[in-house]
Amino acid sequence: MNRVTVPGEPIGRLSESWRHCVGTGRLNVALRADYQESLALVQRDIGFRHIRGHGLLSDDMGVHRRSNDGVTRYSFTYVDQVFDRFLELGVRPFVELGFMPTALASGDDTVFWWKGNITPPNDWDEWAALVRAVVRHLVDRYGADEVRTWPIEVWNEPNLVNFWKDADQEAYFRLYEITARTIKDVDAGLQVGGPAISPGSDEWWEPFAEFVTRRDVPVDFVSRHAYTSGPAQHVPFGTYQTLTAPRHLLDQFDAPRKHLAGTALAGLPVHITEFNSSYRPDNPIHDTAYHAAYLAPVLTGGTDLVDSYSYWTFCDVFEEENVPTSLFHGGFGLLTHRQVPKPTYHLYAFMARMGTHVLARGADHLVCATDDGRVTALAWQPVGGTDGPDAPERHDVRLSVPMTGPRAFVRRERVNEHDGNAFGAWRELGRPRSPGPRTLDVLRDCARPAVEHRSAEVVAGRVALDLALARHEVTFVEVVPVHAEEHEGLDDRRLLGASDDRLVAPHERR
Amino acid sequence: MNRVTVPGEPIGRLSESWRHCVGTGRLNVALRADYQESLALVQRDIGFRHIRGHGLLSDDMGVHRRSNDGVTRYSFTYVDQVFDRFLELGVRPFVELGFMPTALASGDDTVFWWKGNITPPNDWDEWAALVRAVVRHLVDRYGADEVRTWPIEVWNEPNLVNFWKDADQEAYFRLYEITARTIKDVDAGLQVGGPAISPGSDEWWEPFAEFVTRRDVPVDFVSRHAYTSGPAQHVPFGTYQTLTAPRHLLDQFDAPRKHLAGTALAGLPVHITEFNSSYRPDNPIHDTAYHAAYLAPVLTGGTDLVDSYSYWTFCDVFEEENVPTSLFHGGFGLLTHRQVPKPTYHLYAFMARMGTHVLARGADHLVCATDDGRVTALAWQPVGGTDGPDAPERHDVRLSVPMTGPRAFVRRERVNEHDGNAFGAWRELGRPRSPGPRTLDVLRDCARPAVEHRSAEVVAGRVALDLALARHEVTFVEVVPVHAEEHEGLDDRRLLGASDDRLVAPHERR
Amino acid sequence: MNRVTVPGEPIGRLSESWRHCVGTGRLNVALRADYQESLALVQRDIGFRHIRGHGLLSDDMGVHRRSNDGVTRYSFTYVDQVFDRFLELGVRPFVELGFMPTALASGDDTVFWWKGNITPPNDWDEWAALVRAVVRHLVDRYGADEVRTWPIEVWNEPNLVNFWKDADQEAYFRLYEITARTIKDVDAGLQVGGPAISPGSDEWWEPFAEFVTRRDVPVDFVSRHAYTSGPAQHVPFGTYQTLTAPRHLLDQFDAPRKHLAGTALAGLPVHITEFNSSYRPDNPIHDTAYHAAYLAPVLTGGTDLVDSYSYWTFCDVFEEENVPTSLFHGGFGLLTHRQVPKPTYHLYAFMARMGTHVLARGADHLVCATDDGRVTALAWQPVGGTDGPDAPERHDVRLSVPMTGPRAFVRRERVNEHDGNAFGAWRELGRPRSPGPRTLDVLRDCARPAVEHRSAEVVAGRVALDLALARHEVTFVEVVPVHAEEHEGLDDRRLLGASDDRLVAPHERR
Amino acid sequence: MNRVTVPGEPIGRLSESWRHCVGTGRLNVALRADYQESLALVQRDIGFRHIRGHGLLSDDMGVHRRSNDGVTRYSFTYVDQVFDRFLELGVRPFVELGFMPTALASGDDTVFWWKGNITPPNDWDEWAALVRAVVRHLVDRYGADEVRTWPIEVWNEPNLVNFWKDADQEAYFRLYEITARTIKDVDAGLQVGGPAISPGSDEWWEPFAEFVTRRDVPVDFVSRHAYTSGPAQHVPFGTYQTLTAPRHLLDQFDAPRKHLAGTALAGLPVHITEFNSSYRPDNPIHDTAYHAAYLAPVLTGGTDLVDSYSYWTFCDVFEEENVPTSLFHGGFGLLTHRQVPKPTYHLYAFMARMGTHVLARGADHLVCATDDGRVTALAWQPVGGTDGPDAPERHDVRLSVPMTGPRAFVRRERVNEHDGNAFGAWRELGRPRSPGPRTLDVLRDCARPAVEHRSAEVVAGRVALDLALARHEVTFVEVVPVHAEEHEGLDDRRLLGASDDRLVAPHERR
Repeated sequence: MNRVTVPGEPIGRLSESWRHCVGTGRLNVALRADYQESLALVQRDIGFRHIRGHGLLSDDMGVHRRSNDGVTRYSFTYVDQVFDRFLELGVRPFVELGFMPTALASGDDTVFWWKGNITPPNDWDEWAALVRAVVRHLVDRYGADEVRTWPIEVWNEPNLVNFWKDADQEAYFRLYEITARTIKDVDAGLQVGGPAISPGSDEWWEPFAEFVTRRDVPVDFVSRHAYTSGPAQHVPFGTYQTLTAPRHLLDQFDAPRKHLAGTALAGLPVHITEFNSSYRPDNPIHDTAYHAAYLAPVLTGGTDLVDSYSYWTFCDVFEEENVPTSLFHGGFGLLTHRQVPKPTYHLYAFMARMGTHVLARGADHLVCATDDGRVTALAWQPVGGTDGPDAPERHDVRLSVPMTGPRAFVRRERVNEHDGNAFGAWRELGRPRSPGPRTLDVLRDCARPAVEHRSAEVVAGRVALDLALARHEVTFVEVVPVHAEEHEGLDDRRLLGASDDRLVAPHERR
Repeated sequence: MNRVTVPGEPIGRLSESWRHCVGTGRLNVALRADYQESLALVQRDIGFRHIRGHGLLSDDMGVHRRSNDGVTRYSFTYVDQVFDRFLELGVRPFVELGFMPTALASGDDTVFWWKGNITPPNDWDEWAALVRAVVRHLVDRYGADEVRTWPIEVWNEPNLVNFWKDADQEAYFRLYEITARTIKDVDAGLQVGGPAISPGSDEWWEPFAEFVTRRDVPVDFVSRHAYTSGPAQHVPFGTYQTLTAPRHLLDQFDAPRKHLAGTALAGLPVHITEFNSSYRPDNPIHDTAYHAAYLAPVLTGGTDLVDSYSYWTFCDVFEEENVPTSLFHGGFGLLTHRQVPKPTYHLYAFMARMGTHVLARGADHLVCATDDGRVTALAWQPVGGTDGPDAPERHDVRLSVPMTGPRAFVRRERVNEHDGNAFGAWRELGRPRSPGPRTLDVLRDCARPAVEHRSAEVVAGRVALDLALARHEVTFVEVVPVHAEEHEGLDDRRLLGASDDRLVAPHERR
Repeated sequence: MNRVTVPGEPIGRLSESWRHCVGTGRLNVALRADYQESLALVQRDIGFRHIRGHGLLSDDMGVHRRSNDGVTRYSFTYVDQVFDRFLELGVRPFVELGFMPTALASGDDTVFWWKGNITPPNDWDEWAALVRAVVRHLVDRYGADEVRTWPIEVWNEPNLVNFWKDADQEAYFRLYEITARTIKDVDAGLQVGGPAISPGSDEWWEPFAEFVTRRDVPVDFVSRHAYTSGPAQHVPFGTYQTLTAPRHLLDQFDAPRKHLAGTALAGLPVHITEFNSSYRPDNPIHDTAYHAAYLAPVLTGGTDLVDSYSYWTFCDVFEEENVPTSLFHGGFGLLTHRQVPKPTYHLYAFMARMGTHVLARGADHLVCATDDGRVTALAWQPVGGTDGPDAPERHDVRLSVPMTGPRAFVRRERVNEHDGNAFGAWRELGRPRSPGPRTLDVLRDCARPAVEHRSAEVVAGRVALDLALARHEVTFVEVVPVHAEEHEGLDDRRLLGASDDRLVAPHERR
Repeated sequence: MNRVTVPGEPIGRLSESWRHCVGTGRLNVALRADYQESLALVQRDIGFRHIRGHGLLSDDMGVHRRSNDGVTRYSFTYVDQVFDRFLELGVRPFVELGFMPTALASGDDTVFWWKGNITPPNDWDEWAALVRAVVRHLVDRYGADEVRTWPIEVWNEPNLVNFWKDADQEAYFRLYEITARTIKDVDAGLQVGGPAISPGSDEWWEPFAEFVTRRDVPVDFVSRHAYTSGPAQHVPFGTYQTLTAPRHLLDQFDAPRKHLAGTALAGLPVHITEFNSSYRPDNPIHDTAYHAAYLAPVLTGGTDLVDSYSYWTFCDVFEEENVPTSLFHGGFGLLTHRQVPKPTYHLYAFMARMGTHVLARGADHLVCATDDGRVTALAWQPVGGTDGPDAPERHDVRLSVPMTGPRAFVRRERVNEHDGNAFGAWRELGRPRSPGPRTLDVLRDCARPAVEHRSAEVVAGRVALDLALARHEVTFVEVVPVHAEEHEGLDDRRLLGASDDRLVAPHERR
């Protein structure tokens, strides 16, 4: 295998679209301590800019309340708790308007165990009043300058009968128009968009573009979702699915621009407001190291395709399919319950440390430089989904990276079937469904990536990195220029009071 | 008014029945951050020993799960999160077994907005299996020694049709018997009890005693509830009710012993597993200083009547009547949302600082001594409920308390219509339904009791306390013996470099 | 007394010179936990921008180290710990270069219990090398952009024989020149200044200006100190002194500009790098409420006179006169040991909440408006120092302040001989020299200002404030416009289920 | 190499003498934040019972104060801060009475950079008064029951001229007698002991025993120190020394019992109140993995020899040789500055997790069982000090440990020249003397032991452990019985929706 010579000058900047947004369980679960503690970790290690979830207007948030005697009140008891905390944790809402408050619903169709009502309003004026009240409240509480940075998306996957009564396109367009106009009426600087469609529905683009253009309806961005899983194969409390190749996710990211080319919506920001491999919250593939390797080319490859692609979801505090019955249960999360990180968590955390100057991109690596002179590399073993070949036990990535100075400190973190893999340790522990505090500590400890480090000689302005990756590994390397400091008289040969090299550091032996 | 001369020797010990237990909203809300932060405060300032709430077995706790293909699994994902945290915060569960998992229910009658199913099991063996699984799990996770200290109560208020289908006594007795025998089968040292009846149902005692005696059913304690409010007068998002005199609560505490005298259950521990003035979670009386004054003789007067009387509930994170639409909304809590203490919180916090040696009890005061020589007094303005007379603007309590040494430090904390009264400040602020962070800080600040302090001369081993209480005041006084330390050469007359008494402390002026 | 009608439009902005800098004990004590916890409180409640203290180069900081075999090393073990923590707490160094490392000193004269060496260097090149190493290290570690915002002052009070061998002006000018040139040599953007003279030494201004002008020595700011106390009257472990009127402090602030008028240094920033009433760290006047009242006109009156006036010092972790022998011991601090705030702490905390638009200034008040529509007032009882008249028991301040809306929430905090006065409580407690944890909690509790609040009617766009101040009181008032929210059906007359005004808020009764 | 078959039944209990006490830098540095944060970590991971350091009575603690006018005051300002915090962190003082307050000293001989005065008192009555005041204060503040658990040791290493003027034995005995009698006079239940002698001074035992016996002087325990280093070889800011074999430390532990056999002091508790390899705080051997391997047989081997052996010292906040000039500088600490753990820290943390039932002891291992059924092993590569042979690249430890159940979870943590070795990483980083926050994070990260884990089959009630140790490795292994939980329908062969073993865990493949 040849060594890749990474150029010394950047070939571009790493955009932040990969962390522009992340998904969350319905907003009511954002009230929970486990959720908030997980979000705090995520923000410390990854730092998403926005967060998007369902259920802002669903009954359990109590926004649209009607008393027994028929008095309507818009109430923000829980919304404020949730959004206040988001902002405290440094992440802004990506507002999704939905689902329908029961008292305002035209039917009783619901989605999910928690019964989000998915029918159109029974009174369009009341819907508009609700939207107005919500948006007005947000502007009052957080200020127009702040809320103008929060994209507002109208509904979720209206092209699916699960999410929108009869997947009625005409009704959705009406909903979109009324909602968008109401929002702009509150403040013209607010951003509104849609249609938040699911994969396999690209036939919606043309009519959507046509509709908003014809009626001059405001639209500041467009949105869709992306998943790569096949039909659900149910087992008790779980689901298996086939996966197509990761490249298919990038294709889906790219679809809106292609379909909107030539329309009035061409050039609008594109947000992939949900993406993942499987769309099921009970598919154990999410918990694996394979999953991190599978998503590595997506995370690194999507940065220039769209304005955001929002991982669905940041943690397993999530209840679409009822209360999870086991610590690891195939949830979407970067962490499972009780703040145990999964391998994909580390993929994101590695990305957050890459630096902004892209030096090289490849099928199994991304190399960047930081402003303070470090060179970083993310490398992974390519995997191909269900129909891809079995991954070999070892995958080699050989790089030559530019570096200043005589020596460098090379630090590597590894996530694979064994290292940085709480799911692997959990399997070895007998898959305890509800482990006690001691075992949770063990799992959190086993969830840490393995760390290697060494001193490397800089030869002709270059450090050679020979990275042998284990199966399904994602590896992160940081090369730091070393400026040795003088310590007069220090001589490690004398550490035991004699003169020999027993305690001399390997890189200092001759 | 005469001064009460408090004796120097204790007349008894202050039992801990007043803080043996406290109520909580359904266990699912115990997952929330606001709840947990409030509980941490409560434990710091009050220190309850046990906590009891509904809904351990309701669907949203996910204990009894059945997969789509019919596999049953007992799952403790959320129960463990809740009980782990309780124990971390130093409070133990007072387990209430209920309500019915939907998959196990014989009907679809429910109680509360959150729809707790209140029907008997559709299969008694499955119910027993569920109880066995739950109790076995608790013993496995926390150890038999620990769980034997947790009382286990069978169901809630089976005498009411809201809580138990048709209030069917025979069905409850069957439930009780099967449950109690199952629990003892897991570990004979566990404590089980009932019948957890509501006020106005003393006719249940005799048949309950007869039933368990005849069939030799295990029973380790008996329980009932106590409230003093009249019929609900609904307004939008709220309720008003009349209140009878506080003495009526003590009468209810005392009822079980009276009714069980002469039965085989005489002498069993009696737990009042819920009490409050109003049983409505939307009655603003709970938020007032009046409420603290109303409960003061109950809290101090009940200590020797029963083994516990559990204030319903410690905080306003509670949803029986849907999501509260306003920060103050008449919830039961000692604190409202976002950790804002109400006057009754302070009543409890004062009790927690009383010391264990009772020196005097009166209609408007309780005086105790601590092990380290302090004397404490709790005083209140007596109020009589709806039919009681209007409270005057001022109520005087005059005490002479024993004290050692030449001087004492007297510190007083006051809670009344103005001081230590976040509800009062909130009304002055225009009753903001969802106040922002700044206003929440102001409310927490206004929630602190007013503090007064002075140096008092000890005359003939006594300190005179002349306590002028404002309307609806509860006041706490601590008298600390002072041993002045010598500071050679200090002379406050010289503080400004001259010699005068401008800066001499009042108690040191001559 | 007439009521002051505060205009509705600002008469100016409140500059931040009052909190631009604060003093600290020698930098070695900044390593301590008590110190750091106090500084965290100070930064939360006051938010100083810079912090200045002695001893950066003294032996106990270990900057200039010489090994037994004569190797010199510049070491930043402790400096980094201190400055890292300052920056974490949001406050930047105001660097004072001094005193002399023993190994570099030309003599053995020292100042303070901790023996700061006050002699010129024994080798001027080595001094320059040391300065260069220190400044270079700071720039390397924190970045030039950051360090350019840190003023660097050369030595401390060279006009006094205690602080500079023989108060040798010529030697100081040499020190200044070498130091300033060395600093600029590292980075021309760094700010350097002096001469850091004590009160009563205005005869230094002219020669200093002449010297730097003649030799074209860099000078970016000038600095001096200000105190108002008379000769020390020693008692065991303490000192009493007379105080002149507070106005004298403002006169001292103003002196540099007056003396430099017409010189090349006219127009340079002026920093009062130390000020206080007494210059003694064992004068109990610092602990009193009198002291807060004394400094109120200084704090409010100096904002436009100079670029900073730095209170000496923020906390009592300070050892110039050996280890304090008592919790309250007359230290300079805004807090004494163990984070107990003194009255002057509150004066500063009040200032930090004033808002930036000055509406009115008076002999006993300052009124400001905030950006979000609140009106704030700081009021105090004027006191005159030792020769001033005795302060009456009461001082009235009557204001009419502008306000929008129908009603306002008025919140007042009071600090006087009783309220917000830990020193007062400590005296009542018998002056315990080393109180235990319980008593420390009592003291911190008694240190809180007394809080009052009410609803006020806005009449013709105005709220009347009748502030009766107790002896030596400093009071802070905040007037907040109230927008009452509608709660349909709420009627406090019904709180007890009947209809009467027993529980109606006073401001809502008719 | 043969496999060691570890028996299933315990051969004894692991005493707590190894963590009964730990050493600290002089008590004044206990005021520092870095120190306290390190101590908090140590207590979390190791949990020492007592802590002992010099300087309680030295000037910088301010205990014995004399004002300028000659007034003497005993002051506990700092002592209380230090001891309060110790107790908060769960560690009790092991009180060492010394050194001499300057005002009470008979000469000006001092020890250390910080100048502890080592001369006898100039007035023995004043010394007794000081001792009485200190002990009385401790009893008053913390209670007699508490302080009776604190051993009180008289002075430090009086047999050395550095620590006691002329190493005058007679003067020490006088000091001991007066001190011991004074302590017992305050409370007869307090424990007092000595003579705290250094290695190489066993000739003191007989006269000490004879003296206290003859004069019936109270003595509750005896104490000495143990070190194994040869003469200091100085280099700038550092020292190298030879080391004898670790066995020599155990010999020193055992010496007091041998020498006191047959005297009246036979059978008294023996405390090794200091031990380490080198007695120099600037010997880099302390920072190495070699040091952990060197001490492993000492830590495990001393548990039954003495009542305590106190590692000197828990952290590098320590100044006997002036301010350290580099992050790693050869300090005694388990952690260096800024809470960076060294390899020896992990040796102690491993010991803290061993469990109390000893199953096997060997020259390179200790195997224990815990109450909850885990089996733990500590293994190390034996090293022999300067004259020992060079350690091979690999050392094998092969154990067969008893275990229940069909499978076990085996978790291993490794500390060696590369893993868990911040000193190693620091060398690779170019030995930065004062690293910035980013590098400190890297160092703390590299300080974590490497973690390995696997599922092991239990064959015939045994798990085989084949531990290949790297050079100078200390390894910790935990074997946990696994009770696999049933997850109906789970089949890892289906993880990618097909049926193959790509994602099957290795231990589950067939």
